[in-house]
Amino acid sequence: MTKTIVTLGELMMRLKPPGKLRLRQANSFEVCHGGAEANVAVSLAEFGVHSRFVTALPRGELGAQALRFLRAHGIDTTSILLHPGRLGLYFMEEGADFRSGCVVYDRADSVFAHMSPDEIDWDAAFRGADWFHISGITPALSEASRQLAAISMQEARRRNVHVSLDLNYRERLWQYGRKASDVMPSLAALADTLIAGRGDCAHCLGIDGDGENGSTEWAESLTEKLFAHFPDFSNVAVTLRDSQSAERHSWSAHLRTRDGCYVSRSYEMTSIVDRVGTGDAFCAGLIFGLAQGRGPAAALEFGAAANCLKHSIHGDSNAVSVEEVDAIVAADRFGQLRR
Amino acid sequence: MTKTIVTLGELMMRLKPPGKLRLRQANSFEVCHGGAEANVAVSLAEFGVHSRFVTALPRGELGAQALRFLRAHGIDTTSILLHPGRLGLYFMEEGADFRSGCVVYDRADSVFAHMSPDEIDWDAAFRGADWFHISGITPALSEASRQLAAISMQEARRRNVHVSLDLNYRERLWQYGRKASDVMPSLAALADTLIAGRGDCAHCLGIDGDGENGSTEWAESLTEKLFAHFPDFSNVAVTLRDSQSAERHSWSAHLRTRDGCYVSRSYEMTSIVDRVGTGDAFCAGLIFGLAQGRGPAAALEFGAAANCLKHSIHGDSNAVSVEEVDAIVAADRFGQLRR
Amino acid sequence: MTKTIVTLGELMMRLKPPGKLRLRQANSFEVCHGGAEANVAVSLAEFGVHSRFVTALPRGELGAQALRFLRAHGIDTTSILLHPGRLGLYFMEEGADFRSGCVVYDRADSVFAHMSPDEIDWDAAFRGADWFHISGITPALSEASRQLAAISMQEARRRNVHVSLDLNYRERLWQYGRKASDVMPSLAALADTLIAGRGDCAHCLGIDGDGENGSTEWAESLTEKLFAHFPDFSNVAVTLRDSQSAERHSWSAHLRTRDGCYVSRSYEMTSIVDRVGTGDAFCAGLIFGLAQGRGPAAALEFGAAANCLKHSIHGDSNAVSVEEVDAIVAADRFGQLRR
Amino acid sequence: MTKTIVTLGELMMRLKPPGKLRLRQANSFEVCHGGAEANVAVSLAEFGVHSRFVTALPRGELGAQALRFLRAHGIDTTSILLHPGRLGLYFMEEGADFRSGCVVYDRADSVFAHMSPDEIDWDAAFRGADWFHISGITPALSEASRQLAAISMQEARRRNVHVSLDLNYRERLWQYGRKASDVMPSLAALADTLIAGRGDCAHCLGIDGDGENGSTEWAESLTEKLFAHFPDFSNVAVTLRDSQSAERHSWSAHLRTRDGCYVSRSYEMTSIVDRVGTGDAFCAGLIFGLAQGRGPAAALEFGAAANCLKHSIHGDSNAVSVEEVDAIVAADRFGQLRR
Amino acid sequence: MTKTIVTLGELMMRLKPPGKLRLRQANSFEVCHGGAEANVAVSLAEFGVHSRFVTALPRGELGAQALRFLRAHGIDTTSILLHPGRLGLYFMEEGADFRSGCVVYDRADSVFAHMSPDEIDWDAAFRGADWFHISGITPALSEASRQLAAISMQEARRRNVHVSLDLNYRERLWQYGRKASDVMPSLAALADTLIAGRGDCAHCLGIDGDGENGSTEWAESLTEKLFAHFPDFSNVAVTLRDSQSAERHSWSAHLRTRDGCYVSRSYEMTSIVDRVGTGDAFCAGLIFGLAQGRGPAAALEFGAAANCLKHSIHGDSNAVSVEEVDAIVAADRFGQLRR
Amino acid sequence: MTKTIVTLGELMMRLKPPGKLRLRQANSFEVCHGGAEANVAVSLAEFGVHSRFVTALPRGELGAQALRFLRAHGIDTTSILLHPGRLGLYFMEEGADFRSGCVVYDRADSVFAHMSPDEIDWDAAFRGADWFHISGITPALSEASRQLAAISMQEARRRNVHVSLDLNYRERLWQYGRKASDVMPSLAALADTLIAGRGDCAHCLGIDGDGENGSTEWAESLTEKLFAHFPDFSNVAVTLRDSQSAERHSWSAHLRTRDGCYVSRSYEMTSIVDRVGTGDAFCAGLIFGLAQGRGPAAALEFGAAANCLKHSIHGDSNAVSVEEVDAIVAADRFGQLRR
Repeated sequence: MTKTIVTLGELMMRLKPPGKLRLRQANSFEVCHGGAEANVAVSLAEFGVHSRFVTALPRGELGAQALRFLRAHGIDTTSILLHPGRLGLYFMEEGADFRSGCVVYDRADSVFAHMSPDEIDWDAAFRGADWFHISGITPALSEASRQLAAISMQEARRRNVHVSLDLNYRERLWQYGRKASDVMPSLAALADTLIAGRGDCAHCLGIDGDGENGSTEWAESLTEKLFAHFPDFSNVAVTLRDSQSAERHSWSAHLRTRDGCYVSRSYEMTSIVDRVGTGDAFCAGLIFGLAQGRGPAAALEFGAAANCLKHSIHGDSNAVSVEEVDAIVAADRFGQLRR
Repeated sequence: MTKTIVTLGELMMRLKPPGKLRLRQANSFEVCHGGAEANVAVSLAEFGVHSRFVTALPRGELGAQALRFLRAHGIDTTSILLHPGRLGLYFMEEGADFRSGCVVYDRADSVFAHMSPDEIDWDAAFRGADWFHISGITPALSEASRQLAAISMQEARRRNVHVSLDLNYRERLWQYGRKASDVMPSLAALADTLIAGRGDCAHCLGIDGDGENGSTEWAESLTEKLFAHFPDFSNVAVTLRDSQSAERHSWSAHLRTRDGCYVSRSYEMTSIVDRVGTGDAFCAGLIFGLAQGRGPAAALEFGAAANCLKHSIHGDSNAVSVEEVDAIVAADRFGQLRR
Repeated sequence: MTKTIVTLGELMMRLKPPGKLRLRQANSFEVCHGGAEANVAVSLAEFGVHSRFVTALPRGELGAQALRFLRAHGIDTTSILLHPGRLGLYFMEEGADFRSGCVVYDRADSVFAHMSPDEIDWDAAFRGADWFHISGITPALSEASRQLAAISMQEARRRNVHVSLDLNYRERLWQYGRKASDVMPSLAALADTLIAGRGDCAHCLGIDGDGENGSTEWAESLTEKLFAHFPDFSNVAVTLRDSQSAERHSWSAHLRTRDGCYVSRSYEMTSIVDRVGTGDAFCAGLIFGLAQGRGPAAALEFGAAANCLKHSIHGDSNAVSVEEVDAIVAADRFGQLRR
Repeated sequence: MTKTIVTLGELMMRLKPPGKLRLRQANSFEVCHGGAEANVAVSLAEFGVHSRFVTALPRGELGAQALRFLRAHGIDTTSILLHPGRLGLYFMEEGADFRSGCVVYDRADSVFAHMSPDEIDWDAAFRGADWFHISGITPALSEASRQLAAISMQEARRRNVHVSLDLNYRERLWQYGRKASDVMPSLAALADTLIAGRGDCAHCLGIDGDGENGSTEWAESLTEKLFAHFPDFSNVAVTLRDSQSAERHSWSAHLRTRDGCYVSRSYEMTSIVDRVGTGDAFCAGLIFGLAQGRGPAAALEFGAAANCLKHSIHGDSNAVSVEEVDAIVAADRFGQLRR
Repeated sequence: MTKTIVTLGELMMRLKPPGKLRLRQANSFEVCHGGAEANVAVSLAEFGVHSRFVTALPRGELGAQALRFLRAHGIDTTSILLHPGRLGLYFMEEGADFRSGCVVYDRADSVFAHMSPDEIDWDAAFRGADWFHISGITPALSEASRQLAAISMQEARRRNVHVSLDLNYRERLWQYGRKASDVMPSLAALADTLIAGRGDCAHCLGIDGDGENGSTEWAESLTEKLFAHFPDFSNVAVTLRDSQSAERHSWSAHLRTRDGCYVSRSYEMTSIVDRVGTGDAFCAGLIFGLAQGRGPAAALEFGAAANCLKHSIHGDSNAVSVEEVDAIVAADRFGQLRR
Repeated sequence: MTKTIVTLGELMMRLKPPGKLRLRQANSFEVCHGGAEANVAVSLAEFGVHSRFVTALPRGELGAQALRFLRAHGIDTTSILLHPGRLGLYFMEEGADFRSGCVVYDRADSVFAHMSPDEIDWDAAFRGADWFHISGITPALSEASRQLAAISMQEARRRNVHVSLDLNYRERLWQYGRKASDVMPSLAALADTLIAGRGDCAHCLGIDGDGENGSTEWAESLTEKLFAHFPDFSNVAVTLRDSQSAERHSWSAHLRTRDGCYVSRSYEMTSIVDRVGTGDAFCAGLIFGLAQGRGPAAALEFGAAANCLKHSIHGDSNAVSVEEVDAIVAADRFGQLRR
């Protein structure tokens, strides 16, 4: 079993109308918390891993509420700073059938976006750690966050902590004057494991696969090029999602290690409960599988099943156990009531 | 852009148990407001059109609540009368899978059903208007409402306002001593644009298509006969719905103008949120497209996409923007989270 | 029309998080009541049958709440005993897509589990009765409940009341020191009508069909063997469920009488609301059809349609009317809004 | 213990915004059922009395829902008729502090208002009965209801059933062309027990007390005059309410029998939960006490304590047991948590 | 009747846990909208006044939701600008008994705080206006907002529009580098009517009364000094609040005109529903009374009764009619259910 | 600041109808967790103390949910055991005005009631501890729990950990064959600090004060006798509650140390939100004050203010900070909105 996994990023409060109501129809919001790296931390904690999350939260009632969320999931919060300032928020409208869901970010100027790498006690942050995870959302937030991302990865590497990076490209972020394509290549160079969605590598790294986007040929050529370009990579995962409606997506992933290429089972979800955080659930599952030494094929399948399960869970983070993920991997029939 | 679109009809309060609960299981009701012509007015207002709704509401708290609903959507309420009396209501039970939904009307004797054409200042009601819409529900309610429908259409025509009529046949209405087949032909003769569901023309006008009901041959022969019978028609739309379960419907429409025949894309909804008001959403979309001068083919597709989107929206009325409808028309992949 | 149908069993309070929330995420529970035999009683009462339910409930507020539930459905509660002690509970987590639902029982040591056959006035319990129904859940609870099951069936037979038994095998019950395979054969021998799910006969009676489990060949050979083994049987029904996801199940049933074999329509549910109690809904429908003298084929179809409808109803019991079930049997298109 | 108590009147559905929200602010309504005589029937059933309620309800879902409400409380519903037509409704806005609550009736033209005395099987309705209760609301609804009230009281008297009448004057009813002062004296002459609020006797019977309204002198002179005027009266109760705010009322009652005058304890409520039905709770308590033979002083105190408790109960009807009412009568300290 | 009343300020979204839950306990928020000047505008619109609100809102879903709120109340939104940026928010925790409620502002950097006076078409904003109202909250937000406040008051005066200013001192605002005592005197000099809470004049204007704070002597000397200092004042109102617990406040106000001094009735609230916006409700009531020409004493009482009623209304704004306020003024007994 | 405070006891799930609904009216329950010693632990954790809670919870979903609750509050859960079995529950009905609230326990046979002292690693449980708290509820549950209480107190004393005992007498517990008066004296002899409600000492220890129960004379003579009888006591606190209604209680406490007698401020609550856990809140406050070395008078006032605040907080445990409690101690005016 792995020792301690550390993630660093922003935790936001999420505000969502009940069910399928639109934002403009809302008289109330359901509240939860999330953020790419926080979601990975929570999922790993639910898997029983000692999971430390590094961030800054505002002093006061909203920070207290956010801490409750993290602590409830068993997260190690000892490296979290409390500062005056605001909490990042996002408003979310759930899609329905042909109607797309949408996210309205209100995260500018948060205490996290102002957090400087100098404020962090890196020895404490990485105490006992053997894996560090970060996503491309952090360097997209602000110049300070970009530096935080770079330095955190360097501090991890200096301590021989395995570094994973989920490119997680979001065009609507990246408002502070730099482009992803300028920033991400140097960050990717600091990673051991890279995770990327369909268009992420093209946008962030200027590298694309050959052949039809999403095909096995495409994925294999893409990961081959990435391995060629980034000699420190030990694992590269590419995730493939297709959506027919808000409730109906299919999802699979490719993984390349220095030893081979693997393709996961493809899951066809037809009654999605909450699509947010499914990519983070894959990251957490893949990290768990790799860090546990399950081997690449099994780790990939564990990640894919974790991703699949997250689609059935309300909130940003994957409240499922290792046993539940393993059961999905093992099953060929789904949906029976256990009693 | 069109100037002002006017609709006239009854606004009811809708009372629905939460989610899929049956009426007999309900300890609470979700409240919204709707009615065929009100739904069209709301949808047009959400599209940014100056939309005036003519009706009568009860004085007092329930009328105040109904006015809030209309005003929230930006409806012009200056031609709404407040009278002593009751508000029309309907109770609704949402269907689920093989179980059909149902509506229990409690709208008899409402202030609208007693509204007389003499009470209305028609000049004010049609000030600035270039389109008037009404449905076959209004003449089904009472003798007063039948007269109101006829006179409103005449007043519109007298002012060169384009008149659209959605036949909207509901067998359970028409309790006041007249039959739809006696009343509707003369009203249809006052319309420029006619909209009809599958069996509406047969029930209301005694005119049916040839060939299999729902086929293209049937629709084209039906609209051809309608054009022959009603020389003032400039547009006739026929809508086609098939339902496999409460959540799974398919929907398309035909449109005939004096210049040609058009068939819309067919949408296969699989996770319907609220089926009520989808026909009205089509009317609003078609009217918007035609009144904007987008041309018949584009107007038909805009109406079909508006109809499709309404299936994903809670409540009777289509809380979507022009941009959202256009995005559906343009898309060939659906359900991605926008963030 | 049948006279009075009696069922005997435990009524539990069910505690379920709203919607698709997991138990560990819950801050509130929706409350309803259910239990295999109680569900059958409620469904029959909703069909208009005089339906008497025999059980023990705790004195005090929780018993009062449970009585309200039964009375609301029109159940005859005159043979219900009130004792000091606790009410059986179960917690339920609804499944979603690939995630299975689950039930956490907290029913040990309930007043029902301690109920002795000596406490019941059997003449009163069976007054006017012509049918008695019980399930394999009751003898699984405790030694006292096992005796209660056996004696209630004997008391019914002594009064020429038709006895139906739903095997309803649940491995996680049967904790009091006996095995289903030791207990159930002698109980089955007291039944006129047997109802069994896929693996129930193998687990409870040591009898299985030939050929692929679930095939028609299998079902027919199984029911043939059962008829051979239990000469008092007049009807044997075998139910077949397949699940693709928590919301997507298919379901059909076989019925054998001394005169022939019948196969029901197969229903493909795609938007299941509540899967609990669907088997009980089939029992109630089959009993209703048989007791009414509709004949085996019609009774089987009535039961299958009742089962199908239950999947669309919140709660453990089937809040539908005879007319609604008959409409499903007669329909070949589903999901239209009735208005 | 009394045998069977019968009440007759209208049952309405009540629609109330949650908590202290105003009607115009409401997006949902809490649903319950009530009506003066129904409330008395429910309260008596909760006291363990065999309580039969006579009314007409609409066929269909809303009637089914109303029947569930009555049955849940253990009401004998065997004399309830199901007719085509509508259910009476009322909308309610809860008061708060200085803001008064209000009721918006929507009960005109209900199936009850059209119910004729000829439709009722009076022998069945009064089978086993020794007490009949009705209120002045029934004769206020329609000419048919006035006849129903008169004939029901005559049918009761003819069978030597004790008749109680709560004058319950509501100015906003009485819209069908008769005045309370024309109708109520002849109905009062048919009663054995009369219950009246402060101004009821003046409005309905033209009889008022001497001295300051609400004083003991006033109450005693009023009841003395009533006894003089109505020789058949055996009990007259006068109830006195003062309100300081929506949550703070004080309440007491006077009772005169042929043998003496009694004054109840005065209760000062400071945190009222639901003021509706408190008068009916007093009627039920007084009837229970008198019918049980507790004697006038104890019956009056039982009624007053029942009234007091109802102020703490959501809904129109008093969901409390005899033991709870007796505990209020006996207590001189309130509000301790029982555990 | 007055013509058009204009107010200018920030509209925020308010996020509040249900009932008495603390922010840190919240899993959901009730959503409404408010802001000092918006509340005044809404209250006046509910009184039937043509009420125009000038502000900036963000483009997109949150701006659309805010516009719905304003339109629902009948506000004239024609002078509202839509800009890219964020909506001001505030989180609110309701107090309970000895526990104080609190507000957490998250309004920095909102589109309103960046709004410049140059963006506004002042002729359109003041078209038809005879009264303009603004509060001391606007100049506290940012340098741009300070300029906006000053220029809006000058533009109003230039058009002979009566200007009222509620000092509304909030220490936690005023973060942009200026102090209230530097800014407010010059703004006050632009007002015709000044409204101030207990300590507002001392903090903002450096002027205090003599004698015990809150006494009549104090209030009269304070208003006398204000009249002496600000020769353009025609009305000065001073409001006095005492709180015993979160639910129990007492409130009264003084008004001085050039002709005399007036003291309002004192209201003792004991079951407060929502304390926010009560000061704005007074402003709206006082403005309404003065603008209608009711005279100072009656206007003061109208304002005080409006303030009293607001304490019973959920949300920031006073959803009451003129008739309801007048009824409070006229009453000496409160809390009776109107039916 | 104190090091680590340990408490040991049962954690139950609490199930409560929303608001003032009765159990028999409930269709849903609000869920939280509590228990006397758990409440103390949570309150101390909210004060920022390192707070360890020792208990047994069931494996599985309900245990996971309970752990989430404890972790959310920052409790050290490292000494919690997970066992097969059930979680203790209690159902709660909130009182209202004259109606008392009530608790229905369903905690028999829980995993905690079966927990043996042998299962606990006492060194780990008391690592770093300087205070241990337990209540009289634990020894009331079962023979195993009685032994657990005794041994835990002995283990604490052996490590020089200060022991506090809240007598917390509940007659309805103590069902396992021993009486409180037999068990509690020997446990009290193991305590350094004793906390007792009005009748607790008489019931548990056979010791009562002189003079009128609740008077200062009575409290001082009682604590004097306790000091005489239990020579190891360093502090004895006696709490005094009076209730006028469910929402209106008054509360104060006496504290005797070897150096003197202290009486707290008396708080008159008039709008109680949740009365459960208020005694535990006092214990936590008193322990905090004493352990921090604030001195007896200040510690007593801190405890009393903590108790007062808890009456305003939903749930069993006191979600308030040290600053909030200190603010109550310092204030003489309450209920102002902080903004």
